[in-house]
Amino acid sequence: MSENLVTKIFKEHMVSGSYEPGEEVGLRIDQALLQDATGTMACLQFEKMGIDRVEVPFAIQYVDHNIIQLDHKNPDDHRFLQAFAAKYGIHYSRPGNGICHYLHVERFARPGATLIGADSHTTSSGALGSIAIGAGGLDVATVMAGLPFEIEVPKVVGVELTGDFKPWVTPKDVILELLRRRDVSGGLGRIFEFYGPGVRNIDVTGRTTICNMIAELGATTGIFPSDERTREWLAAQQREEDWVELKADEGAEYDEYEHIDLGELEPLIAKPHSPGNVVPVREVAGTEAAQVCVGSSVNSGFDDLAIVAAVLKDRTVYPGLVLTVTPGSRQILDSIARTGVYSDLVMAGARMLEPACGPCVGMGQAPPSESVSVRTFNRNFPGRSGTMTDRVYLCSPTTAAATALRGVITDPRELGDYPELPEAPANPAVDDRQILAPAPPEEAAGIEIPRGPNIKEPPEAPELPDSLECTVTIKVPDNISTGDLAPDGVEVMAFRSNVPEIAKYTFRRFDPEYHKKAKAMAPGIIVGGENYGQGSSREHAALAPLHLGIRVVIAKSFARIHRRNLISQGILPLRFKDPGDYERLEQGQTWRLEGIRERLENGDREVPLRSGGEEIPLLAELSRRERNLLLDGGLLRHLRKDREEQPEAPQRVSRQAER
Amino acid sequence: MSENLVTKIFKEHMVSGSYEPGEEVGLRIDQALLQDATGTMACLQFEKMGIDRVEVPFAIQYVDHNIIQLDHKNPDDHRFLQAFAAKYGIHYSRPGNGICHYLHVERFARPGATLIGADSHTTSSGALGSIAIGAGGLDVATVMAGLPFEIEVPKVVGVELTGDFKPWVTPKDVILELLRRRDVSGGLGRIFEFYGPGVRNIDVTGRTTICNMIAELGATTGIFPSDERTREWLAAQQREEDWVELKADEGAEYDEYEHIDLGELEPLIAKPHSPGNVVPVREVAGTEAAQVCVGSSVNSGFDDLAIVAAVLKDRTVYPGLVLTVTPGSRQILDSIARTGVYSDLVMAGARMLEPACGPCVGMGQAPPSESVSVRTFNRNFPGRSGTMTDRVYLCSPTTAAATALRGVITDPRELGDYPELPEAPANPAVDDRQILAPAPPEEAAGIEIPRGPNIKEPPEAPELPDSLECTVTIKVPDNISTGDLAPDGVEVMAFRSNVPEIAKYTFRRFDPEYHKKAKAMAPGIIVGGENYGQGSSREHAALAPLHLGIRVVIAKSFARIHRRNLISQGILPLRFKDPGDYERLEQGQTWRLEGIRERLENGDREVPLRSGGEEIPLLAELSRRERNLLLDGGLLRHLRKDREEQPEAPQRVSRQAER
Repeated sequence: MSENLVTKIFKEHMVSGSYEPGEEVGLRIDQALLQDATGTMACLQFEKMGIDRVEVPFAIQYVDHNIIQLDHKNPDDHRFLQAFAAKYGIHYSRPGNGICHYLHVERFARPGATLIGADSHTTSSGALGSIAIGAGGLDVATVMAGLPFEIEVPKVVGVELTGDFKPWVTPKDVILELLRRRDVSGGLGRIFEFYGPGVRNIDVTGRTTICNMIAELGATTGIFPSDERTREWLAAQQREEDWVELKADEGAEYDEYEHIDLGELEPLIAKPHSPGNVVPVREVAGTEAAQVCVGSSVNSGFDDLAIVAAVLKDRTVYPGLVLTVTPGSRQILDSIARTGVYSDLVMAGARMLEPACGPCVGMGQAPPSESVSVRTFNRNFPGRSGTMTDRVYLCSPTTAAATALRGVITDPRELGDYPELPEAPANPAVDDRQILAPAPPEEAAGIEIPRGPNIKEPPEAPELPDSLECTVTIKVPDNISTGDLAPDGVEVMAFRSNVPEIAKYTFRRFDPEYHKKAKAMAPGIIVGGENYGQGSSREHAALAPLHLGIRVVIAKSFARIHRRNLISQGILPLRFKDPGDYERLEQGQTWRLEGIRERLENGDREVPLRSGGEEIPLLAELSRRERNLLLDGGLLRHLRKDREEQPEAPQRVSRQAER
Repeated sequence: MSENLVTKIFKEHMVSGSYEPGEEVGLRIDQALLQDATGTMACLQFEKMGIDRVEVPFAIQYVDHNIIQLDHKNPDDHRFLQAFAAKYGIHYSRPGNGICHYLHVERFARPGATLIGADSHTTSSGALGSIAIGAGGLDVATVMAGLPFEIEVPKVVGVELTGDFKPWVTPKDVILELLRRRDVSGGLGRIFEFYGPGVRNIDVTGRTTICNMIAELGATTGIFPSDERTREWLAAQQREEDWVELKADEGAEYDEYEHIDLGELEPLIAKPHSPGNVVPVREVAGTEAAQVCVGSSVNSGFDDLAIVAAVLKDRTVYPGLVLTVTPGSRQILDSIARTGVYSDLVMAGARMLEPACGPCVGMGQAPPSESVSVRTFNRNFPGRSGTMTDRVYLCSPTTAAATALRGVITDPRELGDYPELPEAPANPAVDDRQILAPAPPEEAAGIEIPRGPNIKEPPEAPELPDSLECTVTIKVPDNISTGDLAPDGVEVMAFRSNVPEIAKYTFRRFDPEYHKKAKAMAPGIIVGGENYGQGSSREHAALAPLHLGIRVVIAKSFARIHRRNLISQGILPLRFKDPGDYERLEQGQTWRLEGIRERLENGDREVPLRSGGEEIPLLAELSRRERNLLLDGGLLRHLRKDREEQPEAPQRVSRQAER
């Protein structure tokens, strides 16, 4: 039977379950990815598993988020992570090397591999034909322990690409077009597989952009076939041996279909405050901008920066506007320096930032009050820039360049002929000396892991009691992001290793005193709308509520990774059977989930929420595995219980020979 | 009569007073310099003077300190400053252009000019033969209003340089040697003039390093003659027309003498926590370091970075250590990019930071807890790095490079032969397009100045009452820095436009609740030891205490700029006649300065501090001008009163034709 690419890779990696949409399967994982903002917490949880060395074939700890370092907290984390990596057999990428997704696509991602990463944009590696999925830190810790990654088989959306781009239109506009069509929850429970003759017109960097932002659709991941462009990329990276051709079989079918004619696309832009709020650039052209930011884990590649340099060459950034440029990696930084792109940007007035996540995660470069910032980034949730009154637009580098030149949002087609770009160096600097290899085991045993005063043990949920009586601590609207739960930015992210402190910022956008109220009302409920927990993979968005005594989140719908993180941390995610019941819940009310333990044990899909004579029917759409985690009080307790009950069981997937 | 260079430039610029050591003279000022951390407050005070355009021949507003931008506050300041500059006729250097002192030496400083800057390291421009003095923002505002700069004629220290450097020894070691000899208050009331045959062996960048850190001696400034090296520098900057030869007359005399044989110097290093705590590098060699930082307003020049690149070329930064490199300016950034220095640093593993003050003012790159950070900076006050338990060492780029390579503090002479350095480009990129020129007056009148919510009017002191009864709010030890009074770092410096907020951080190193206690005890006294108020020029170190109700500071001795700032803001700086009386003052005691107004009016040099039957004699060593400022409640009130009393008086120094 002809199969699509996703099905093939899934089947090759399945160690349990059967491949049916909606069924839970266990996948053997080839690679695990951590970054510093999620990494310490993942490592602290890994430590609790009592394992000597990671048992996944390849694990890497990048440092790219918390690198501004206002005080001891971030560098203490880096020191912890470096020692931890050496002790447990994890590669360690030094701060300054660049953004994890760029580095992973350059050096480690490979066709047909499975990758689980503690970052929602782990999906980027789908550009090289990996099944690359973002997950919470505890999920990644579990993968590092050699256990399979359990996941419901997603639907596969086939996205047929035809035609070729017109000048000034870019791969960014492909993903913005998908967001325009489907909005930020239109990819839930789905993997997007790209195919068709248009695929060859998008290079690996462009594919990375598309796969990265597939996360903004709420999708599980995105994937491109491994073709001649893939081979060229891997050859330039001196690892052509990682190449295999991979594509869907002739006549393969998909659960859903999209078709995009690249030749029909025009420059698009996402308006504040959602990546799904997409319109043609021409509709907002003329809007005055105070800032343009190029780069982030999308659009930090050589071509992305080269077009900005070409547009600005021998001209200057508009006087009333500030332009920042972030290269994606040390290799890209070297390439733009050698080709003169760097100097052109510098002389045009760009502020050249370090290769790191930077302003995309609120690490500096906040725009002025109530001003427009035009960014090539992937998210524009309100306040994520650091400025609470921000108005952030998301677009391609060509639109950003035109805007930086003119001072107002500008359709780049107005600039006339597309400029000649310098060629990217045929042989980019391939140099892994800044990625420190794991220490050999005999040396590793003696490694002491320094723990700064900001590094605190993660909280754990108790076992689920027979019944729960909880108080509604807050009711929040649709599309709550993990940034609302555990905010971005230097100040808060410095507490990523310290749940009691980071919990103080939970929902601060709605109520700076929320954390105190929630603690006073514990055990608590959070009531949410649609797409609750969208955005990043940070498990702090579950750990912080856990610390505040939250036991249940009731929402109209959940974002994938956050729902998974809630379950891993022992917090019940329940849906309204009737979304209209959202109106019946208010802060301060106390409700009961009677016999909830027994109901989960029985696998009840519906559970009643009761108060006085009132009753609200809720949906407990949980797999057997998820119910077990919740009954035991989260994944860590579950694993410990498993080990206690069956000490000899072959819990771990066998280690592979490859890296 | 043969004169030294300082005397010549002073006499050429004197508009009042007579040139005798200790006498107050008024100097005509050619140039005014602001940076963004002190600039908004200076501008807000300038606005209160009611003048339409600046009346100093050349004024410039740099943006180099607060450019991390965690939220709206910093970018709102920048927007304010850009509009303010256009409206009032000030040049504006965009963020990303580089560090003010490097830019000023490149583009604007010139032999024989006078420069007053709202930054203690304004002294850097002495490298080109300017008399360049750091001052508070209000002093600079006064200069911008066209008024002369009043100053007691300093002693001139002649520093004779002979010989030439041995390999690996650098100009940084010259200034460290002076600090070793004289410590951090050994330059009080003095200007250091360099002369002798060794001068020709130090290029303008090296001279900039020496003049910059002359501030660490507490000196008024430092100055080099304008010679052939100066001419070459100015020619490369395409402004040879600014060159004049300037030197001391044959047989000129100095008030004090120093002699340094460059050939006798060895690599030196300042240990924690004072720039004056200098020892030979070999004495601390082998100390494990977690971080090396190259750059800042010293040692960010081409050669400074090139030697680090050469030492690390084809090698890597020690794995357990992080190296940051900060170029001084856009021009230097371009030069290192074009010559491959940049790429060598990148590939060796350096973290390349934006050209800005950066970690030197606590803007990121804090080291891990209790770790050693080796920096080419100018200050290592405790906690200034952002990490309260830091151990910061100050040294030359060669020592920093050797340490980055080995992971322990290393005498660079151990590295063997001095490497071949690439030549700095003969024609560096001279490009002032990123320095925005003032708007023409007709356009300027219509400019509106946007004021973000964090920009607040500065406080003003009341007129001095007949008598003062004040409470001792705190007693602090020797060498209190302005960073203790108004701390460095992103969080606090974001409040530089907001005195009520920044005041909350006053003395937080000693007592985080100090601000509340001081307010409760107001009117208040601060009791200090020797060299009170050393370090930067920030007038917030006076404005914040003013806001907290401080009326008097009693210390064993004062740093020059801070003492001046106290007087400008109407706070009485008094010295102990007997330093032993420091022991008699304690927090919470209330003391009286009876008839203080009359005593100042009479010019009493000694005033008694009384409580019950006790009396402590204090010294009021104040010039007539200073007494007048204090009587009126500070400089702004004094100027207003002047204008009211003599509306027609020719208060302003006439404007010069030159820029």
